[in-house]
Amino acid sequence: MSIRDKILSRLGAKPGDVIKIKRDGEELVGILMPSHDFSDDDIVVIKLRNGYNIGVEVSDDTEIEIIEKGEISKRIIEKEIPFDPSKPTISILGTGGTIASYVDYRTGAVHPAYSAEDLAYSVPEIFEICNIRARILFQLLSENIGIENWKILAREIANEFNKEDVRGVIIPHGTDTMGYTAAALSFMLKKLSGPVVLVGAQRSSDRPSSDAYQNLYHASLVASETDIGEVVVVMHGESSDTYSLIHRGVRVRKMHTSRRDAFRSINSEPIGKIENDVITIENDYRKAESGKVEVDDKMCEDVALVYFYPGMRADDIPEKKGIVIMGTGLGHVSKNLLSRLKELIENGSTVVMTSQCLYGRVNLNVYSTGRELLKIGVIPAEDMLPEVAYVKLMWVLAHAKDREEIKKLMLTNIAGEIGDRTLY
Amino acid sequence: MSIRDKILSRLGAKPGDVIKIKRDGEELVGILMPSHDFSDDDIVVIKLRNGYNIGVEVSDDTEIEIIEKGEISKRIIEKEIPFDPSKPTISILGTGGTIASYVDYRTGAVHPAYSAEDLAYSVPEIFEICNIRARILFQLLSENIGIENWKILAREIANEFNKEDVRGVIIPHGTDTMGYTAAALSFMLKKLSGPVVLVGAQRSSDRPSSDAYQNLYHASLVASETDIGEVVVVMHGESSDTYSLIHRGVRVRKMHTSRRDAFRSINSEPIGKIENDVITIENDYRKAESGKVEVDDKMCEDVALVYFYPGMRADDIPEKKGIVIMGTGLGHVSKNLLSRLKELIENGSTVVMTSQCLYGRVNLNVYSTGRELLKIGVIPAEDMLPEVAYVKLMWVLAHAKDREEIKKLMLTNIAGEIGDRTLY
Repeated sequence: MSIRDKILSRLGAKPGDVIKIKRDGEELVGILMPSHDFSDDDIVVIKLRNGYNIGVEVSDDTEIEIIEKGEISKRIIEKEIPFDPSKPTISILGTGGTIASYVDYRTGAVHPAYSAEDLAYSVPEIFEICNIRARILFQLLSENIGIENWKILAREIANEFNKEDVRGVIIPHGTDTMGYTAAALSFMLKKLSGPVVLVGAQRSSDRPSSDAYQNLYHASLVASETDIGEVVVVMHGESSDTYSLIHRGVRVRKMHTSRRDAFRSINSEPIGKIENDVITIENDYRKAESGKVEVDDKMCEDVALVYFYPGMRADDIPEKKGIVIMGTGLGHVSKNLLSRLKELIENGSTVVMTSQCLYGRVNLNVYSTGRELLKIGVIPAEDMLPEVAYVKLMWVLAHAKDREEIKKLMLTNIAGEIGDRTLY
Repeated sequence: MSIRDKILSRLGAKPGDVIKIKRDGEELVGILMPSHDFSDDDIVVIKLRNGYNIGVEVSDDTEIEIIEKGEISKRIIEKEIPFDPSKPTISILGTGGTIASYVDYRTGAVHPAYSAEDLAYSVPEIFEICNIRARILFQLLSENIGIENWKILAREIANEFNKEDVRGVIIPHGTDTMGYTAAALSFMLKKLSGPVVLVGAQRSSDRPSSDAYQNLYHASLVASETDIGEVVVVMHGESSDTYSLIHRGVRVRKMHTSRRDAFRSINSEPIGKIENDVITIENDYRKAESGKVEVDDKMCEDVALVYFYPGMRADDIPEKKGIVIMGTGLGHVSKNLLSRLKELIENGSTVVMTSQCLYGRVNLNVYSTGRELLKIGVIPAEDMLPEVAYVKLMWVLAHAKDREEIKKLMLTNIAGEIGDRTLY
């Protein structure tokens, strides 16, 4: 049993009770929130009157008492969301992930009273800038978000814009596969009438070091105040709580397992940043359009992303309709794989070459290996991220009628995934 | 026919002839070198009297004449390598790659007179600091360097130290898989009595922008002057010709397809840098030992490196003795793959988890997915690079007698591949 659980059980306190904790001479009063398997052993989470959840370190010496017994479900349901017709309305469609972690998605013990509104309530400043419509679509760790989820998301986002006339949509999402989802939505959604902002947290909101508040607040600013008509990712720009970056959905990658500034734009600068409540646009973006948002969510699921390594054998490359290879350097594989790739292409597969370097552009014209690959029909994916090329190939294979159109679409810049020149 | 070939054919000039080219009022005299498929169409490469190869842009207006007819093979063979007993002797073992590109490895038209000495002669300053023993072991594009090549290299390196008593060994190598080779040599070579320095070039030495000279010169300084007893990579530290970095062989990764400063130390700072002929050591390293270098090159080749992506199916994971997965975030895969991994492990496979984030450490204790993976026996590879974990698993599977020892060795820091804390 953790220190927290020992202290709370001795006290007889349960989630929903209003408790008072003394810390550094200060008295903190709030609703006791449930703890999680992944909460630190000595952190008690309480929801303050202003709506914030905070984590308080406790020890056997901590002065702590129950002010009022209560039920957690009642506490949450009681809240009413203010509506202000002078403010823009944005929609929050929850999918799970660390940012929603006090919902306890991760342990499976989801309390029905927890809602996406609660997510918004964790950052009460949001209500000063916009009205919130909030729904939970999924309660998934992002490693379990798949192609079907992308399609549902795309349709629900279009619905929010077209039927509910929201100004922007926020998608709280686990960080693990947020880049893949952002890319998929970028290809599926056309003529966006407002920003679609994916946002996550690297540290759950019951931790003092959580990045959930800043990221969600900044995402709300972007959804409420910009005329961006693209799918973007808003996450911490540096490790401390200074600014967030607006990354293009097809250019962003999680580049660190745990840091709060893990998300980086690759081969492209971020669209802009948010600092001190001010959004600064620093690069070109697609502007929101008037009219209906269109959804084009057909995907071919028979696609693989294959990492090349020395010692790879021909039969390590699976037979699929589409194969995106992460080659070395400018886009190379060892020569023992060439006949396999040739055979696959002759049998109708599409093979696309990206680079495991991640940064930079593939170029199959420089070395003989590259020229051989071009000759057998491998498509060089320019400066596209491998993960984005994978998602795009699924989309392209479901839309192109023949080999020529597949190649043309793969090499056409559809959503900002291909750049003219390569940045480091 | 290229402009260059037209001009040279009109003139009747052949490789080996001494020619004179006027450029900007200056007269350049040197031996005409062969051109390559990947040379720019309007660049003529000549070897100056000081040994440098330079590329000169030519057009129809360029004044150019033959000074003396000659044969390229004779020109190179004529050269004698100076030997100075007061200087350390280092060994250069050529493997191919862009750094040796004027050897024309890439077109297959390898001229027998071209030698690894010639590589050294391209940077005559090297002879001011050391004596050179030079041999070509392979003439391979690095994407074609495989496990057998690693073994030959390890044995040849040990031979150079043990039988020829060289102070250090330089391995010119293609950049594409230099990180893999550096990792393999790091595990195979024990008790190194001097530095093993892998070096490459992102631009071939017949281009004005080549990084071959600086990299090779700096590699020679590291091989001649340091007491490092590790396998390291020496490459440009930034895009311009300012300084080079000494990267630990198990911590380095090619992070850009074309930039000269493509190589980066990941989750670890470089060991040091070389600037203005001065080597500055900035971090811990293993010191060279006296006595014989040992080679332990047994490898299990039945290992795969598998990239996880949303939509991956259970049968996309091959059955191998060893499987290194590049999971998302802290080391996750979707839950539909768990039973496949469980089955593989029960059938005797070793499954190791790394992160496609590259930066940071995997941690399977934070989320339920990770805990499930731990429960079925997946080994978390700490902050090891995926490519290094792949090479290490091949080595470990050939050395450990049972499952417990495999796990113990994978989690033991053998060559600096695992760190205590994680750097960004």
